[in-house]
Amino acid sequence: MTAVECGNDIVLLDAGGKFPEESQRGIDLIIPDITFILDRRRNFRGILITHGHEDHIGGLPYILPQLEQKGEKIPIYAPALAIGFIQRKLEEARMDDKVELHTVKGGDRVKLGQIEAEYIHVTHSIPDACAVALHTPVGTIVDTGDFKFDPTPVMGKPTDERRFKRLGDDGVLALFSDTVRVEVDGSTPSEAVVLETMDEEIRTAKGQVLIATFASNVSRIHMAMLAARKYGRKVAVAGRSMEQNSRVAEELGYLDNEDGLLVSLEELNRMPKEKRVIVVTGSQGEASAALSRIAAGEHPKIRVSRGDKIIVSATPIPGNEDTVSHTINNLFKQGTDVVYSGRNRGVHVSGHAGRDELQKMIRLLRPKYTVPIHGEFRHMALYRDLCVETNIPRENVMLPEIGGVIEFTKDGAGQKGRVPSGNILVDRLGDRGNPQTVLRTRENLTDDGFVVVTLILDRSTGELVAGPYLVGKGLSKDLNNGALKEAENELRRMLSRQKDGSPLYGFIVQRAKETVGRALYRHSRTRPLILPIVTEL
Amino acid sequence: MTAVECGNDIVLLDAGGKFPEESQRGIDLIIPDITFILDRRRNFRGILITHGHEDHIGGLPYILPQLEQKGEKIPIYAPALAIGFIQRKLEEARMDDKVELHTVKGGDRVKLGQIEAEYIHVTHSIPDACAVALHTPVGTIVDTGDFKFDPTPVMGKPTDERRFKRLGDDGVLALFSDTVRVEVDGSTPSEAVVLETMDEEIRTAKGQVLIATFASNVSRIHMAMLAARKYGRKVAVAGRSMEQNSRVAEELGYLDNEDGLLVSLEELNRMPKEKRVIVVTGSQGEASAALSRIAAGEHPKIRVSRGDKIIVSATPIPGNEDTVSHTINNLFKQGTDVVYSGRNRGVHVSGHAGRDELQKMIRLLRPKYTVPIHGEFRHMALYRDLCVETNIPRENVMLPEIGGVIEFTKDGAGQKGRVPSGNILVDRLGDRGNPQTVLRTRENLTDDGFVVVTLILDRSTGELVAGPYLVGKGLSKDLNNGALKEAENELRRMLSRQKDGSPLYGFIVQRAKETVGRALYRHSRTRPLILPIVTEL
Repeated sequence: MTAVECGNDIVLLDAGGKFPEESQRGIDLIIPDITFILDRRRNFRGILITHGHEDHIGGLPYILPQLEQKGEKIPIYAPALAIGFIQRKLEEARMDDKVELHTVKGGDRVKLGQIEAEYIHVTHSIPDACAVALHTPVGTIVDTGDFKFDPTPVMGKPTDERRFKRLGDDGVLALFSDTVRVEVDGSTPSEAVVLETMDEEIRTAKGQVLIATFASNVSRIHMAMLAARKYGRKVAVAGRSMEQNSRVAEELGYLDNEDGLLVSLEELNRMPKEKRVIVVTGSQGEASAALSRIAAGEHPKIRVSRGDKIIVSATPIPGNEDTVSHTINNLFKQGTDVVYSGRNRGVHVSGHAGRDELQKMIRLLRPKYTVPIHGEFRHMALYRDLCVETNIPRENVMLPEIGGVIEFTKDGAGQKGRVPSGNILVDRLGDRGNPQTVLRTRENLTDDGFVVVTLILDRSTGELVAGPYLVGKGLSKDLNNGALKEAENELRRMLSRQKDGSPLYGFIVQRAKETVGRALYRHSRTRPLILPIVTEL
Repeated sequence: MTAVECGNDIVLLDAGGKFPEESQRGIDLIIPDITFILDRRRNFRGILITHGHEDHIGGLPYILPQLEQKGEKIPIYAPALAIGFIQRKLEEARMDDKVELHTVKGGDRVKLGQIEAEYIHVTHSIPDACAVALHTPVGTIVDTGDFKFDPTPVMGKPTDERRFKRLGDDGVLALFSDTVRVEVDGSTPSEAVVLETMDEEIRTAKGQVLIATFASNVSRIHMAMLAARKYGRKVAVAGRSMEQNSRVAEELGYLDNEDGLLVSLEELNRMPKEKRVIVVTGSQGEASAALSRIAAGEHPKIRVSRGDKIIVSATPIPGNEDTVSHTINNLFKQGTDVVYSGRNRGVHVSGHAGRDELQKMIRLLRPKYTVPIHGEFRHMALYRDLCVETNIPRENVMLPEIGGVIEFTKDGAGQKGRVPSGNILVDRLGDRGNPQTVLRTRENLTDDGFVVVTLILDRSTGELVAGPYLVGKGLSKDLNNGALKEAENELRRMLSRQKDGSPLYGFIVQRAKETVGRALYRHSRTRPLILPIVTEL
């Protein structure tokens, strides 16, 4: 999330959520702290969204209630597909009446006080992605969003190079650039590579084909449909977010289902195996998503066996390697053939620009200043080197910090202190889909105390070797030993109901959190932080 | 570790230790359970080691005391460099008098009862690696060890293809094969690629050059020395295991130091920066190794700054991605230029055979049966497919299980039950280098109870947000609340002594374990399992 302030006008660029790392157990989602905006609420003009990925829209349901002011709807601008996803998300959270959604496309301009935002079409791994140029009295700032220069995108047009070139001709003050693939020389392969691979894998498949990808990856669903149509198969999607997103994409015309290619999972299951393609969630090995449940033989509607092919059309996000690897091993144990990026690089390509493409963007825009965003420190440092190679003076490359302020004036630019900022930790109560959440800052993290849940499992059989043991600190006085004991027993019963199969670490972590959290809430109406610690031996 | 039994003779092939995964916190090393051997102790003829990597020799100090019988030394056979590493390791553990070390090389044969073991030279990422052919009355079993067909190894000769071919001509009953790179098409690049990259990176470096690699990777130290000599630099090594291994390698003639190229770190530090090459441990981001301490600005003898270059000559082992990434970010924050596999693929190549090489080995040996070893389930499943492609009937590919028995007779082969097996968990007491350890099985895991240590840190500043809190279960009665409180205070003091810099998750986990373990042992002479749970927010 970037806030751009110009005189008395502030706009927000994107509103993502990020998933916690392994060492942040007990937390479900992390969203940005928007105290800075709340302190200047009357200057706030709206939110500009570049595209519909979770890390750009996932924070909205948690940010909007904070921004709410009576009688005033919050303006959100986004390309059509992102608007579709946002609408669904907000309906679910019963917040759709709090916003005013505006669909924009490449070439559109939106006036927000002194700031004029211009959308520019780019290619990414989702259709309808845009960069945003903010025209201000001191100059133009371009935020690339997530992009690559894909010459043969499978959906939509190539990146609007001409417009970037013209912006460069007119003069760009600052370029805020995607950097996540700055480590990789050359250009990122086209999505067309994935289409070819998927075509080939579906052509040669004998049984069911499952394709695991991100729920928002409409383009991969589209590819699965193209190949399925060609080889006489039908397509269903599985996983709640995948079903919702594909419905949105179909309604908006991004998925062509005129010939009834897309059917329900129930209908697909009545067809012979060699006619089936199922697109599922869980490409990151997420414990509660379809793929890992299928891998563990626990999915209520999807069973796989020898002769079936599973295509994992994603690469593990750093930190998820273990769970993805665990899921793939389980799928092989079911006798299926699994095609994943470690085996076949063509099953996935990145949506982000490689080094040459990042350099091309700098050359098109010829900005005075550059600001690497969306990367880890090493990405920012390497992007700075790339800028220097491309004749941007080193001192004109600003490495931003979370909460850091960069001020641009007519005379120059500089880093200028910090504003309140940081991570807000979203703690979801209980079961999936339950909209009840707690927002925690570092300061109020342990206001209700916390409970450590210790479980020691046999890695091979999944049996409990020791535990569960609950120990609490700083809890409400309603949570006496009896209450903890009761929660402990509930968790033990839940675990004993587990079906056979290799234990899924993440699944147990999540279930432990839900079961214990619910039991303690019932007793005390307090929400201690639950820290599950599962040791597999 | 593989045990081969033939009549009344049993030999062990390799004796590795493996490092715990993230979910096995509280454990330092995992070694195989050798109950099966102990039950047949008088039939045990010795240990055959294929090469000197930790995952092939690291279990020896824990296994040997179990195998010990008074008056009898345990025979260990291994190539020269591995013997050097083993000797050092056993001297340190004061076990060198318990063994009888035999140096062997490619072409050598060792008679162990009815089994005749033949060593065959292969290439790997360490010099002096061998495969072992076990000639038995029912036929010949070949264990490849870890290998690749490197046509231009930087140290030593190429793999002895002729011998494998001749073994194939004579008839091979079973091939036990390395499989870890079966996912990758083609052949693994030669070590010569790394030499070229290192040469180029050192040639173009302006300040200090640091090269991080595994302590046993003598070949990379050799490459660093070749390049340093060429460009007028001197070389020092840092990190305890690296110092010991390089000394062994120098004494055995694997590293050529006749011209005094290799100097002490103190001596190197007196030379100008542009004359220095330092080879360090910590390429996996291990918290206590040199590289992560340098990255955090905490190394007592090595400081880095802008103008220095760090070459990480390794890829993260699955599960270590986060710590490696954290270390690389920290190094960039110090202003250094970091060259790692994500940026430059030439800094590291695997030591394991790719798919074509695995197939080549099958074609050379034409075994009746194959057994994939050393991989995860997906590697074994893919190796089975590869065997089928190479005309081995599917039913002749045996996927082994830990503890599973495969019986070969004159008439055939089959999987035949299980023997006692599993993981023994090594829990080291306190500080590094302290030889005191506890071996735990799943059953006795919590015999002394356990203590959960909870710490919540601010990710950006490393400050304690909450904790440490110690809570115990099933502890000795000597460990009352006062004792826990005292340990808690000690840990708090230790953490407050921490220097500035981004917190290192693993470092804190380890220190918490050491501090608390030591305090509790002092009170009770018991060794509860310490489970540190660090949440970074």
